[in-house]
Amino acid sequence: MLDCSGVSISSVPEGTAVFARVPLLEVSGPLAVVQLLETSLLCLVNYASLVCSNAARFRLAAGSKLKLMELGLRRAQGPDGGLSASRYSHIGGFDTTSNVMAGRLFGVPVSGTMAHSYVTSFSSLEEVWPRVMMPSGGGEKVDFVTLTIGWLRRVCDLLGVKAENVHEGELAAFLSFGVAYPQNFLPVIDTYSVKRSGLPCFCAVALALCELDYQPVGVRLDSGDLCQLSVEVRSVFAECSNHFGVEKFLSLIIIGSNGLSEQSLCDLNAKSEIDMMGVGTHLVTCTHQPSLGCVYKLVEVSGQPKMKFSEDSEKTTLPGSKNVYRLLDSEGHPFLDLLCLSDEPPPAVGQSLQCYLLKHGNTSYCVTPHQVSSLRQNVFSSGQITLPLSSVAESRARAQNSILSLHPRHKCLKQPDTYVVAMSEKLYLLLCDVKAKNSTAGNFLCKQEGL
Amino acid sequence: MLDCSGVSISSVPEGTAVFARVPLLEVSGPLAVVQLLETSLLCLVNYASLVCSNAARFRLAAGSKLKLMELGLRRAQGPDGGLSASRYSHIGGFDTTSNVMAGRLFGVPVSGTMAHSYVTSFSSLEEVWPRVMMPSGGGEKVDFVTLTIGWLRRVCDLLGVKAENVHEGELAAFLSFGVAYPQNFLPVIDTYSVKRSGLPCFCAVALALCELDYQPVGVRLDSGDLCQLSVEVRSVFAECSNHFGVEKFLSLIIIGSNGLSEQSLCDLNAKSEIDMMGVGTHLVTCTHQPSLGCVYKLVEVSGQPKMKFSEDSEKTTLPGSKNVYRLLDSEGHPFLDLLCLSDEPPPAVGQSLQCYLLKHGNTSYCVTPHQVSSLRQNVFSSGQITLPLSSVAESRARAQNSILSLHPRHKCLKQPDTYVVAMSEKLYLLLCDVKAKNSTAGNFLCKQEGL
Repeated sequence: MLDCSGVSISSVPEGTAVFARVPLLEVSGPLAVVQLLETSLLCLVNYASLVCSNAARFRLAAGSKLKLMELGLRRAQGPDGGLSASRYSHIGGFDTTSNVMAGRLFGVPVSGTMAHSYVTSFSSLEEVWPRVMMPSGGGEKVDFVTLTIGWLRRVCDLLGVKAENVHEGELAAFLSFGVAYPQNFLPVIDTYSVKRSGLPCFCAVALALCELDYQPVGVRLDSGDLCQLSVEVRSVFAECSNHFGVEKFLSLIIIGSNGLSEQSLCDLNAKSEIDMMGVGTHLVTCTHQPSLGCVYKLVEVSGQPKMKFSEDSEKTTLPGSKNVYRLLDSEGHPFLDLLCLSDEPPPAVGQSLQCYLLKHGNTSYCVTPHQVSSLRQNVFSSGQITLPLSSVAESRARAQNSILSLHPRHKCLKQPDTYVVAMSEKLYLLLCDVKAKNSTAGNFLCKQEGL
Repeated sequence: MLDCSGVSISSVPEGTAVFARVPLLEVSGPLAVVQLLETSLLCLVNYASLVCSNAARFRLAAGSKLKLMELGLRRAQGPDGGLSASRYSHIGGFDTTSNVMAGRLFGVPVSGTMAHSYVTSFSSLEEVWPRVMMPSGGGEKVDFVTLTIGWLRRVCDLLGVKAENVHEGELAAFLSFGVAYPQNFLPVIDTYSVKRSGLPCFCAVALALCELDYQPVGVRLDSGDLCQLSVEVRSVFAECSNHFGVEKFLSLIIIGSNGLSEQSLCDLNAKSEIDMMGVGTHLVTCTHQPSLGCVYKLVEVSGQPKMKFSEDSEKTTLPGSKNVYRLLDSEGHPFLDLLCLSDEPPPAVGQSLQCYLLKHGNTSYCVTPHQVSSLRQNVFSSGQITLPLSSVAESRARAQNSILSLHPRHKCLKQPDTYVVAMSEKLYLLLCDVKAKNSTAGNFLCKQEGL
């Protein structure tokens, strides 16, 4: 019978920051079975790791305060790609997703605003229904439309906006939304023109909500110069707060969305008044690097170390079953990942050890770890899961702590120092041995002479 | 009850070549219901159209003779993203997929070769089992290992290859594969060294198969300079054929894979001896343009035309329910797609008509179509599918015919002419009207004075 009852897997826990050429998983079991797992495992690991890393870069670009909202479903590779994107973006550092299925399946907090089509679907104030609502604290119902129109006049006067430029449909849409969701009023304000219509309409409805003791949430900007617009919107909020004595306007938030990339996030973060960014396309498609090249290679058969040589040295693999140790410096920052053969003892804390850089052949290197942790855990043995699966929240906490522990020189977004991945002396000697044997691999022809 | 019983959809048939700003789908029905469909439809249309277009570009780059094999599952956004990639790459012009599930679900022809781990799993000729096989025409079993070793000596002599560089494990792997699949012998030959080991091993096993009246298929190259290697491999095939009098070596194929892009395909196509290309990463992730920006916008409510203005003119939409017509020139090439209001009659063949370019506001344009076709069909009405769904094979035929019909100036890969998409005069006048109304949208405030 063909099943995974003879398969064991050791794996880096989900959410751990890892570096190039560190083996993330080691799968052992009957040769034919583990060969069949190749593409399935690569498919499950590659995109998840890629989008999680991309999300972590967005988080680093945004800093810790800015909220990040994932909006990528419409640009993902189908519904399942979208769910993977939501799950792993959250682990990488995004706060919320617009994918309600991801909320339901994985517990990722869900957030969203309003579609432009909601705004454009309204033409006239006559479409607003109901027109009345109760104040937050209860009491008599108030004509919310009339109340808001009064505020709109004052807002137009204050801001010097021409009343004839305000779009009746946009006001009707905001009114309808405000009546339905007075605690969650966060419209998109760029459907017609932010300054001439969207912003005055928002302020009018929000002021009416404040008068009824509700707290409006804020606005979303989805086009134009987000940085400049956010500064202007913030200043209008301050002006309204000041002029009308409404403190609640000081806690309104501004959400920005519109093709945001890692770079635009860096730029916006420095100068804008945006509190929360919605990111879709560039997050889920990982525009900057749309694929991750994890591979699955044979390292040992029946105790015999194996490796692939290839015509490209980049594609050459390291032989033998391995353990991976992360070495930390005196400040608790990881500084080197060490690949050892699985029968070697772990590196000892405080003792110097010699190792060999992966990239530069026989350059040796002497290091003394202040702390050592084993990167992989046995997660699957004899066909059974042996460690409970991490929840998304646990993986997210692990990812954020793992990234936090990195030295700034390794996690700066531009030109970071290369993190060192090295081999133990024993692994290095094995590599030399397998290479040497490979160059005399054809001796069998001489042996066969006796045939 | 919330369902799609009131929804109707007209759609461009799957596989039709389309151009930017042509509305692919028109969805009508109860406002709240069709608003809920936005993200689902975009998710299903965007990536499918993107990867299909990308595959079509690879097909144009490869020319019509070269076979294209899709190998992208491991770099796709999860299993479902991989299936979408296989399905739509085939429609776009790929011949086969390595995803056997796509073969089963969609009938895409499946093909593949051999993994490097299969090759590296072998060390010694003692692992080859069974060692004997029957000739293709039947008869006494032959010791296939001894037969092949004899051929290997002759090949090494002919090619001037040192026998001690031939990797015993690689020969053992090829022998095992050849015994198991004598009709389908197509190994990957770059595991150790193409020229020193992989190619001589292949020739030896293939010559032994030929001696037993089988037809070996060919080789796969997965690293190094594919162009140069393929030329050398082809010349070795010719040399063997000539020297050993084995004509079957003239019909061997060479498959190339290894991070192939549209550009590398163009380059290889011109000079290499490769018959079939395997493409994964750059196909499924669409590296060149990793997302397609289809949007879903409201165009009409209760007979009232609607549009979004936005702070970015690129994001402005066209109002009103529309039909789309493709206008063909006297040679049968499409030259213009015309957006009309849905109550307009179709453009008449042979009659000149005035239209307005989408991009350049009020530039008008006079054209006379020699043929006219309606681009969209009613596919869903009152909650029911009204046209049978296309099979993958039908969509593929439509796509290939649709691309074939395009004028070369529109489908050349570099700097193609922009295909013209235009509005009818009636649609243009409606657009002007809605814009004008938008600029006086605030009159309601004056109307409200009476309150």
